[in-house]
Amino acid sequence: MGELLDKITEKILRQIDGAGFEQKGAFNLRHNGIALCHGDSEHIKIKKKEGKQGIDIFIDGETKGEQVHIPVVVDASGMRDVVYNDFYIAEGADVTIVAGCGIHNSGCNESRHDGIHSFHVGKGANVRYEEKHYGEGEGTGGKVLNPVTKIYLKEDAVFTLDTAQIKGVDSTLRETDVEMGPNSKLYVVEKLMTHDNQTAESNMEVQMNGEGSSAQIISRSVAKGHSRQVFHPKAVGNAGCHAHVQCDSIIMDHAEVSSIPEINARHLDAAIIHEAAIGRINDEQLVKLRTLGMTEEDAEDVIINNFLN
Amino acid sequence: MGELLDKITEKILRQIDGAGFEQKGAFNLRHNGIALCHGDSEHIKIKKKEGKQGIDIFIDGETKGEQVHIPVVVDASGMRDVVYNDFYIAEGADVTIVAGCGIHNSGCNESRHDGIHSFHVGKGANVRYEEKHYGEGEGTGGKVLNPVTKIYLKEDAVFTLDTAQIKGVDSTLRETDVEMGPNSKLYVVEKLMTHDNQTAESNMEVQMNGEGSSAQIISRSVAKGHSRQVFHPKAVGNAGCHAHVQCDSIIMDHAEVSSIPEINARHLDAAIIHEAAIGRINDEQLVKLRTLGMTEEDAEDVIINNFLN
Repeated sequence: MGELLDKITEKILRQIDGAGFEQKGAFNLRHNGIALCHGDSEHIKIKKKEGKQGIDIFIDGETKGEQVHIPVVVDASGMRDVVYNDFYIAEGADVTIVAGCGIHNSGCNESRHDGIHSFHVGKGANVRYEEKHYGEGEGTGGKVLNPVTKIYLKEDAVFTLDTAQIKGVDSTLRETDVEMGPNSKLYVVEKLMTHDNQTAESNMEVQMNGEGSSAQIISRSVAKGHSRQVFHPKAVGNAGCHAHVQCDSIIMDHAEVSSIPEINARHLDAAIIHEAAIGRINDEQLVKLRTLGMTEEDAEDVIINNFLN
Repeated sequence: MGELLDKITEKILRQIDGAGFEQKGAFNLRHNGIALCHGDSEHIKIKKKEGKQGIDIFIDGETKGEQVHIPVVVDASGMRDVVYNDFYIAEGADVTIVAGCGIHNSGCNESRHDGIHSFHVGKGANVRYEEKHYGEGEGTGGKVLNPVTKIYLKEDAVFTLDTAQIKGVDSTLRETDVEMGPNSKLYVVEKLMTHDNQTAESNMEVQMNGEGSSAQIISRSVAKGHSRQVFHPKAVGNAGCHAHVQCDSIIMDHAEVSSIPEINARHLDAAIIHEAAIGRINDEQLVKLRTLGMTEEDAEDVIINNFLN
């Protein structure tokens, strides 16, 4: 049965947990700074931290294809929630971690959640980490999300980071740091949409220290209204390695997008490629959809959703 | 007849003036901080500055397909030469400016030349600016070149910047700033080769202020030995405009290359693309050339020269 959740929490969970949040297996639901409910599974144990906010998640080497859900909901206006979550993923584990944070702010004070996540990924482990950020509420108070993500990959580890800020987040500063061991692989897909007067800044630093490591980073964003976005991905090759960084942005209305990638080859066998493009919505697609009878607004939505998915 | 030039000066001129330096038409040869010889043409007048080092070059609107040659040779060890050259290019002019600086340093003191060039380009004028940098000499003294280039383009102006640092420059810091008016066009080709313990930093900022302006920037570099290169091109779209920035680098030995482009769209109709790649020399080409009987060194030279030309 588990805890009975209120309607706002259930609604937000549907936005931030695409796989569907259920109170079974390993899970932890944080609500206004308190663990509302939590469960362990045979292979995944969640422990409350002593002395500071957050949890330690221990994923053993026998874990195969299991999911852990750790959503965060903030619906108290004016709340500032800072939480430290540390993941210890043992050698050979195969796990999907579904995180995400939704803020419902119906008041006039700023609500803010800073999730500081670190992932210690053992040899040959395979981790998929999904994170969705979302804001809503009729209040004038800001909805602020400042995630910090630190990823440490041992030999042969594979990490997929699928992160999306879908709507309603007034201000975000995202910091992502990755250190890669030999033959480890990193896949990042970042999707970001800002509107009105929102601001988003995303800094990412990938240190390819291990021979044979490789990274693929894809960032797609749409900036509407008067919103502002800044991207600063950095890929450093300290060994024989491959990296491909791609940032594409659609700019609309009076928005501004700045892309400042940095690629740094410090080794003869480091091969690093970067591509970035900023431009307006595809006019041909727009005309085609409007010919099919869509309004301009609907046609734009179709193109944007397609671009971000 | 003109001035009789010594052998070192003649040798350096052949390196830095690809079109061939001759003492006719409009020209100015600067040697160890002094104008050794100079000449005007009907449409191009060169005037020595009052109060500071350098020249003003006035190119009238009747100039059609003419060349101006303004090479600089430094062969006194320990010399620091700072010079300000301002170009005033009238509406409708069509001109090629061949600059370049060569340092011969046979002593143990640093020789340095800082050329600060500004180009005021009138409506519809077409300017091609070629600049070659070169160092040589058996001395232990450093050969340092720090060029500053400022380009102001009026409506419909076209500017081609062809700049190359071919060899022997121990340290360089290049600053290039461009401001673009309506429908103006900028083409930049930058070629850079560093070896041994050389360092090169190139910063470029292009402000596309005018509706319909467009910029194409191509940077190609080769880093050998323990040399270090840093590229920081920045393209800002403040109006409906197009820009394409492409940086390709070959890394060899223990060299390091860092590429930090910045693209910034501040207008709905600004379309900006950036591509950067850093990697080692093409192995397939290397094998092919060696199969044809070339030594590894010769094969590398062929590939590098091909890449830079």
